[in-house]
Amino acid sequence: MYTKTLVLIFLAVSTTADGRSANKKQTEIRYDPTWESLDSRPLPTWYDEAKIGIFVSWALFSVPSFGSEWFWERWKEDKNPMYVQYMKENYRPDFTYADFASDFTAEFYDAEAWAELFAASGAKYIVFITKHHGGFCNWPTNVSFNWNSMMVGPKRDLVGEMSQSLRSKTDLRLGLYHSLYEWFHPLFLQDKANNYTTNRFAKEKTMPELYELVNTYKPDIVWSDGDPLAPDTYWGSKEFLAWLYNDSPVKEKVVTNDRWGKGDHCHHGGFLTCHDRYNPGVLQPRKWEDAMTIDKKSWGFRREAVLEDFLTMDEIIAVLAETVSCGGNMLINVGPTKYGMISPIYEERLRQMGEWLKVNGEAIYASKPWVAQNDTVTPGVWYTQRAGTVYAIVLNWPQPGQLILGSALPKSGMKVNLLGYTEGSFTWQNASPKGISITIPPIPVNQMPCQWAWVFAMT
Amino acid sequence: MYTKTLVLIFLAVSTTADGRSANKKQTEIRYDPTWESLDSRPLPTWYDEAKIGIFVSWALFSVPSFGSEWFWERWKEDKNPMYVQYMKENYRPDFTYADFASDFTAEFYDAEAWAELFAASGAKYIVFITKHHGGFCNWPTNVSFNWNSMMVGPKRDLVGEMSQSLRSKTDLRLGLYHSLYEWFHPLFLQDKANNYTTNRFAKEKTMPELYELVNTYKPDIVWSDGDPLAPDTYWGSKEFLAWLYNDSPVKEKVVTNDRWGKGDHCHHGGFLTCHDRYNPGVLQPRKWEDAMTIDKKSWGFRREAVLEDFLTMDEIIAVLAETVSCGGNMLINVGPTKYGMISPIYEERLRQMGEWLKVNGEAIYASKPWVAQNDTVTPGVWYTQRAGTVYAIVLNWPQPGQLILGSALPKSGMKVNLLGYTEGSFTWQNASPKGISITIPPIPVNQMPCQWAWVFAMT
Amino acid sequence: MYTKTLVLIFLAVSTTADGRSANKKQTEIRYDPTWESLDSRPLPTWYDEAKIGIFVSWALFSVPSFGSEWFWERWKEDKNPMYVQYMKENYRPDFTYADFASDFTAEFYDAEAWAELFAASGAKYIVFITKHHGGFCNWPTNVSFNWNSMMVGPKRDLVGEMSQSLRSKTDLRLGLYHSLYEWFHPLFLQDKANNYTTNRFAKEKTMPELYELVNTYKPDIVWSDGDPLAPDTYWGSKEFLAWLYNDSPVKEKVVTNDRWGKGDHCHHGGFLTCHDRYNPGVLQPRKWEDAMTIDKKSWGFRREAVLEDFLTMDEIIAVLAETVSCGGNMLINVGPTKYGMISPIYEERLRQMGEWLKVNGEAIYASKPWVAQNDTVTPGVWYTQRAGTVYAIVLNWPQPGQLILGSALPKSGMKVNLLGYTEGSFTWQNASPKGISITIPPIPVNQMPCQWAWVFAMT
Amino acid sequence: MYTKTLVLIFLAVSTTADGRSANKKQTEIRYDPTWESLDSRPLPTWYDEAKIGIFVSWALFSVPSFGSEWFWERWKEDKNPMYVQYMKENYRPDFTYADFASDFTAEFYDAEAWAELFAASGAKYIVFITKHHGGFCNWPTNVSFNWNSMMVGPKRDLVGEMSQSLRSKTDLRLGLYHSLYEWFHPLFLQDKANNYTTNRFAKEKTMPELYELVNTYKPDIVWSDGDPLAPDTYWGSKEFLAWLYNDSPVKEKVVTNDRWGKGDHCHHGGFLTCHDRYNPGVLQPRKWEDAMTIDKKSWGFRREAVLEDFLTMDEIIAVLAETVSCGGNMLINVGPTKYGMISPIYEERLRQMGEWLKVNGEAIYASKPWVAQNDTVTPGVWYTQRAGTVYAIVLNWPQPGQLILGSALPKSGMKVNLLGYTEGSFTWQNASPKGISITIPPIPVNQMPCQWAWVFAMT
Repeated sequence: MYTKTLVLIFLAVSTTADGRSANKKQTEIRYDPTWESLDSRPLPTWYDEAKIGIFVSWALFSVPSFGSEWFWERWKEDKNPMYVQYMKENYRPDFTYADFASDFTAEFYDAEAWAELFAASGAKYIVFITKHHGGFCNWPTNVSFNWNSMMVGPKRDLVGEMSQSLRSKTDLRLGLYHSLYEWFHPLFLQDKANNYTTNRFAKEKTMPELYELVNTYKPDIVWSDGDPLAPDTYWGSKEFLAWLYNDSPVKEKVVTNDRWGKGDHCHHGGFLTCHDRYNPGVLQPRKWEDAMTIDKKSWGFRREAVLEDFLTMDEIIAVLAETVSCGGNMLINVGPTKYGMISPIYEERLRQMGEWLKVNGEAIYASKPWVAQNDTVTPGVWYTQRAGTVYAIVLNWPQPGQLILGSALPKSGMKVNLLGYTEGSFTWQNASPKGISITIPPIPVNQMPCQWAWVFAMT
Repeated sequence: MYTKTLVLIFLAVSTTADGRSANKKQTEIRYDPTWESLDSRPLPTWYDEAKIGIFVSWALFSVPSFGSEWFWERWKEDKNPMYVQYMKENYRPDFTYADFASDFTAEFYDAEAWAELFAASGAKYIVFITKHHGGFCNWPTNVSFNWNSMMVGPKRDLVGEMSQSLRSKTDLRLGLYHSLYEWFHPLFLQDKANNYTTNRFAKEKTMPELYELVNTYKPDIVWSDGDPLAPDTYWGSKEFLAWLYNDSPVKEKVVTNDRWGKGDHCHHGGFLTCHDRYNPGVLQPRKWEDAMTIDKKSWGFRREAVLEDFLTMDEIIAVLAETVSCGGNMLINVGPTKYGMISPIYEERLRQMGEWLKVNGEAIYASKPWVAQNDTVTPGVWYTQRAGTVYAIVLNWPQPGQLILGSALPKSGMKVNLLGYTEGSFTWQNASPKGISITIPPIPVNQMPCQWAWVFAMT
Repeated sequence: MYTKTLVLIFLAVSTTADGRSANKKQTEIRYDPTWESLDSRPLPTWYDEAKIGIFVSWALFSVPSFGSEWFWERWKEDKNPMYVQYMKENYRPDFTYADFASDFTAEFYDAEAWAELFAASGAKYIVFITKHHGGFCNWPTNVSFNWNSMMVGPKRDLVGEMSQSLRSKTDLRLGLYHSLYEWFHPLFLQDKANNYTTNRFAKEKTMPELYELVNTYKPDIVWSDGDPLAPDTYWGSKEFLAWLYNDSPVKEKVVTNDRWGKGDHCHHGGFLTCHDRYNPGVLQPRKWEDAMTIDKKSWGFRREAVLEDFLTMDEIIAVLAETVSCGGNMLINVGPTKYGMISPIYEERLRQMGEWLKVNGEAIYASKPWVAQNDTVTPGVWYTQRAGTVYAIVLNWPQPGQLILGSALPKSGMKVNLLGYTEGSFTWQNASPKGISITIPPIPVNQMPCQWAWVFAMT
Repeated sequence: MYTKTLVLIFLAVSTTADGRSANKKQTEIRYDPTWESLDSRPLPTWYDEAKIGIFVSWALFSVPSFGSEWFWERWKEDKNPMYVQYMKENYRPDFTYADFASDFTAEFYDAEAWAELFAASGAKYIVFITKHHGGFCNWPTNVSFNWNSMMVGPKRDLVGEMSQSLRSKTDLRLGLYHSLYEWFHPLFLQDKANNYTTNRFAKEKTMPELYELVNTYKPDIVWSDGDPLAPDTYWGSKEFLAWLYNDSPVKEKVVTNDRWGKGDHCHHGGFLTCHDRYNPGVLQPRKWEDAMTIDKKSWGFRREAVLEDFLTMDEIIAVLAETVSCGGNMLINVGPTKYGMISPIYEERLRQMGEWLKVNGEAIYASKPWVAQNDTVTPGVWYTQRAGTVYAIVLNWPQPGQLILGSALPKSGMKVNLLGYTEGSFTWQNASPKGISITIPPIPVNQMPCQWAWVFAMT
């Protein structure tokens, strides 16, 4: 059943024009502010083809750079003694979270260097935080006076510089992350206390930001982070999406996610994110995204992080293979420092991912899920397909001898190649009861095409 | 003509009940949001009787404490090289005004001590800054998230502590200063650019503050500071005043000033302030207030101030005499430090004013202007009256011999006393062509009742 | 007996040449490093004639500006909970006293303005802190690397600028205060633990500073502050003084005090200071100085000070009169702020003292104690003499009628004048059993020559 | 000739007792403060056997963490516009280097975690900075009052905590780095200006530190960093070394380097360091050490560092192989952050080095140089020997087929094994004209014993 739905969906996707060029037929369609109508909009194809995005978690939490990006909430709500203790030991008693702002110096922030790095990683888009739950805005907004990156701390338009550099230096797409709610905004707390029967916060504060962001930076993705308690009728999300799809300057190309209000997560909007580190492991009927992070404990930079907190390349490539096989995109997170650098451990992971993709990208970009996702016989094997070729991403190099791909379909004349290996095709034969068995020669280490996972292409 | 109007007005005032107790008749009157109606409301009598208020200029400008309270505007607009130079020499290049907030420590702020001092000064009310043109709010407002004294810097409700202490420790009235406009609020600048045809700033930001302040702190005075360019229709000032007078919790007692929008200054509202250091020198038809400051160069504390920048007691008493004589109230300003102290030079002036008023208060409090304001023959003599007694406030002690009061009205049996002087009445005789001539004996310095001005009471 | 000793001493003083000009005879005298020899040196006359100096307490304690200049010792030694509490409430737990240094900004320090103010006060010399017990040096010394005003904080030579301005703009003399010991210097603590049998601190740290100061700034006074426990043999004080008197560049003019080691206070050296606020109230056989402070609770600036903490002008003039009458000099202290201003309350006192001295200086400067110090009949009367005139400084203006000066010596033809009063001499007659009785007319306030104390000159 | 000298020296070394246990014979020898005598002391054997140390560059330069550990000198001397520009753009104009101290927070410094990491790296000793050229001391010294880590900033004994943890948690040896000179200490500059004819700095400041360090922390290595211009007679280095070898508490075990004054570098003392990144590439007659750093551009942590600034594991292992082959030790540097963490990129390198050494350590620890150092035929092959086995460290995995070791000596019955490879010995045969040719089978990647270099043991 999944497969069927899948086919339909991907047909829909494949007849949708690339968002970058105008599409006459599509512009004549207008959407109503109902989920039925909004959900009927085909996802612009570029997004599914991109497969890999980089999430950039840079915000005021990057100043304490401790614990996680939920620093403020956990400290102030006294939820986690670690944060309370940290503040007690290192700051004056009346120090407030807002006092951190003046120390958000960003002096080394070089958006061009970041753009270059993101491109080198093989990612095709980024999702940049414009405002996290704390409410500090990374751009000179009209509705957060003196609580934004132009008025305090960096004195710079962090979003604008990234947008500009990404577009002038790379082909990557720009996504903007925006938190609908704010932990401690008094207008939000007031609306919440009123059980969302009032909506001053939504109307005067957070939705004006979204319109402002779209009009100013013309993002390719609007990556909303909604409160699971407030309904979309409170936020006005559907009206925003209808405007976004019908009348905004990005109506052709823009992609959205699903966090638009209570009950919408995992059900409505553009691609589905469901929850952080969402990785269902099986094929999904709708396009989805796994937002995950290299530092396993935090999205924001943590000064106290140690090596074992970071995903290894083996782990990253495994997530990528599984995600793409099951129809998802991987949104891999980095947390820059308050002074504006992406620290070398992150850089190393990103560049190594780029090296891997240079060899194996054809199994990833613009690929489609195949009939099987992971192999039924050999563990750690994930499939994709593209232009008639089926790719088996093998996470663990097989012992010399035979690699059995139980889900592969033997076809006469089928050639089996190892991507990046230049010494010729591999021989194979039918396996029993099904699938194929590939003969693996003892390839010396210096002839191996890459380090962390290997892709067999069956043409 | 002035005199006639005056009589009418003060009759009106005198039939008005004290705002502290409910007045049944008055509560039945409702006001429309028109100046005709609003201006018809009698000023609660307590205000005219109070005569002396203290303006408390404490805000984010108290952090740099340099130049004046217009620091930000002059620095940012590059209007005054002094400010630009100061910042260049003492701060990192990208330091912003908002960065000052975390240094607003207020650690010594003791609202009870302030209240005690204000009471000792002889003032009967204070006007406390809630928000100056910079926009930083001294109370935990809903509409200035992370840009208020509870969220950054002091971590305290500066307005609330003052309000609480003033009321629990003294009989002084609480006035709240509030700037309608903000120099650099982007919503205001947007409305301004739209020639005030839009009003997001007024509607979403500044007016909600005013309602919030009134409901929370129940002030006796709402001391508005309006932009001379934006009309009251932009602000919604008249609607606010109608609510304030009709339905607010302070409708009986509250007094307002006149800075409610373009063209209203000096014409509409409660008492008239017209402009800073407003002191017309002649009797006015309406109640007015002279907002003036002890530091002649600034309302906010200036660290670089030297002694000669401060008014002497002679100067202060002169302003007080002239103001009260001409029907005004004196609002005398002090600028506290960022750490929450009222520096001793201010304290000295206030306490000395209190000493003077202990002796001479009967010529000031609840007095009315007399038929003449200043004497026509002897310079530096100002008149008031109260309960059948006429008071001549003599700024310069006369040479021994005769003091001629050309405007005094000789009455048979009239007694002339020097307030605070216990050695008996003074003899007088008719002067020519009019007035009286008082015989001044050579009083030794240690029998003089006070130091800076002397009051002759004619009963 | 005192009187006799006094006469001898003042004869000695009066035959000493002014230190400003070379004195051939004196240079031939050499002093041994023994008290017998050192104490035999006549005090340069300029010092006794000066009568009034200003102590300038500016040091690292001016950064916290809280409690008193003993902040560090009381906080660190946990002697006073007020300091411990203050630090706990306002600073991060591991904040150290040395961390204050970077906040010693001194941005408004204008040594010329200070010099002008000191001159206007009527003082004839200053004593400027070069190093207090904390050890932070206000000049770029060789022996306190990175713990001096040039290397951290102000980045300026505070001593040098003062020295330069004082000499180029005024006739005031320069005194340098220097603390021999340091509360927490580990070398000192080590020597102390060794019961001063080792002297690394004295030899390597503190005495090199003294030589450096004398050679660099050529002070008129070396105002040493010694530890009452360590003997002068530990410090090498006598050797220093011998060098100072014999071979230093200031050997002619320099004046020293008495705090050179255990047992020396009040006994050896130049003038005697004995202890802070030393004011014996009776004539002393040796020249002495009353080091006292306008803020009664502290020598350093205190941000939390209130008006009543400051001496009034009545109190200051009383101390001055008593001190000069008894043969002392008054060293009156001001505590500048960390940003380099002398706050207006101090300025007011100093300028008012200057106004008083403009009228009454002839009874002070270069005066000598008289046969009587304070009057035996009328309290609050202190005597001085100069050039054949006896001065009675009357602290409280007498009731009209008679002022009895029981200690005055009636002389036929003696004229009694009130300094600054231009309306003629006062009549007097012999009082009974002794002294004189001056007839005090009722002088009106505006003919009084000054405000706080009045001087009757008997010629 | 080298070989001959080598034999003699290593004989000397090998008859020296381990410094950890007392050696009766040795203790009877006393050294004179002459190089002849001092140089005759045999190096305690533990040092040569250790082979790998970690240099820990943590000091006040870790606060700006910019450019390099020479930040202060280059900025202040205006030698490098990069530093001048950085300070101009990011700090107030009068900010001084000493002002950085209060920001040296070290809040995450966990010496036990560091010790665990250093042990995991396979290193056998560390060299920890106690004082760099700036002069800031990382321990509570007697001679740098308020300019050390206990008095300002961390408020901790950084050296003491490291010493304690290293010894209680690991078997690693403790080396202490100490800079004899200080760029800007005025006493040093004075001595220098006097052409080192005076020695106040050496005598009162820097040498007392060295004695204090040895007595307090009992280091295994004293790693001196001397000024190349001042002679050892100025410093008193030879006297110090004589004391260190004869009478200090570490006389048995202590090892020193060679930077003791002008002309001593590379000639006298213990092991030779000659200059940074000293790696002669050929066998040396005396024990030497290559002090090199993972961040190619700096010894101190640089916030602006990017991935390519760091040595790769290939490069690190290459340096290690070359160094050990030529008789040196490798001292590999890490630069911790001001907040006390060793950042993950450093941690990754260290742990990977540890993994490599777990497999290949037998070719490194306690090995001796062999008759040949690098192979004459195949590039990237370095030899060591130990207990009868010769090790060939092969940096680049050979193409399948034959690996020719032109310098290896074929011996009948010799077994050739790949360290860590469990599938048996390799066959070999004589090569022509000399050496051996090893047959390399195609080993699959998952049977390879390690990642970066491979060791063939010939037994």
